Amino acid sequence: MDCVFCKIVNGEIPSYKVYEDENVLAILDISQATPGHTLVLAKKHVKNLYDMDEKSAAQTFACVPKIAQAIKKAFNPIGLNVLINTDKPLQTVYHFHLHLIPRYPCDGVEIDFINNMGNTSKEKFAETQKKIIDALK
Amino acid sequence: MDCVFCKIVNGEIPSYKVYEDENVLAILDISQATPGHTLVLAKKHVKNLYDMDEKSAAQTFACVPKIAQAIKKAFNPIGLNVLINTDKPLQTVYHFHLHLIPRYPCDGVEIDFINNMGNTSKEKFAETQKKIIDALK
Repeated sequence: MDCVFCKIVNGEIPSYKVYEDENVLAILDISQATPGHTLVLAKKHVKNLYDMDEKSAAQTFACVPKIAQAIKKAFNPIGLNVLINTDKPLQTVYHFHLHLIPRYPCDGVEIDFINNMGNTSKEKFAETQKKIIDALK
Repeated sequence: MDCVFCKIVNGEIPSYKVYEDENVLAILDISQATPGHTLVLAKKHVKNLYDMDEKSAAQTFACVPKIAQAIKKAFNPIGLNVLINTDKPLQTVYHFHLHLIPRYPCDGVEIDFINNMGNTSKEKFAETQKKIIDALK
């Protein structure tokens, strides 16, 4: 295995650990987008969200509220984003992890995704809905 | 209760539902950032991530991989982001939900948060780490 996050989980590469339980390790992101930027890693190697099963998803996410609460208590941000990058354009390490990014006024983080499509017709919504429902079958 | 997402969960307001189980409802976001943009709502009203407990976090996230897989199968995006907005600057509906945003080339979505802080000193990392660990106690 040549996975940097597996090596962090195994202790072969040092990290700034803030939380650990049976299923996850939470560390400071080495590239701090904002003060307190934290990663939650699944301990078990899984490439990304697409490859997770229900149980590991549930186990990985269970700790996220309490880590978010701790970041809020520690840094008093105006808000917080949780972000998961799956494949392009942003996933760089192919070992499942999620970002907790506390937000501050004028922090330089850009997250803008609202209504890029403009108005969507009812027909388009119905077609989109059907495609996802069919794919879930 | 005057919560628009509670009304959607209760069926008082119509939505484009793609998935439902005991704990969550998944619907198309009425503002489609990209084709297939889906929201996963916790059925039980909780303001945001800070107010979730471990169990509800786990139950809400369990379905996310399979919905992501279905979106991938349905739309063949280049990637996918999961995003949770907690308070400012982006949370508009104060009922816990997460966004699944399939990504396409030149889709107009902007997510840029890498290393806004520049280099962080070891001392700063250690201080940040201590603050979060203390807040978790």
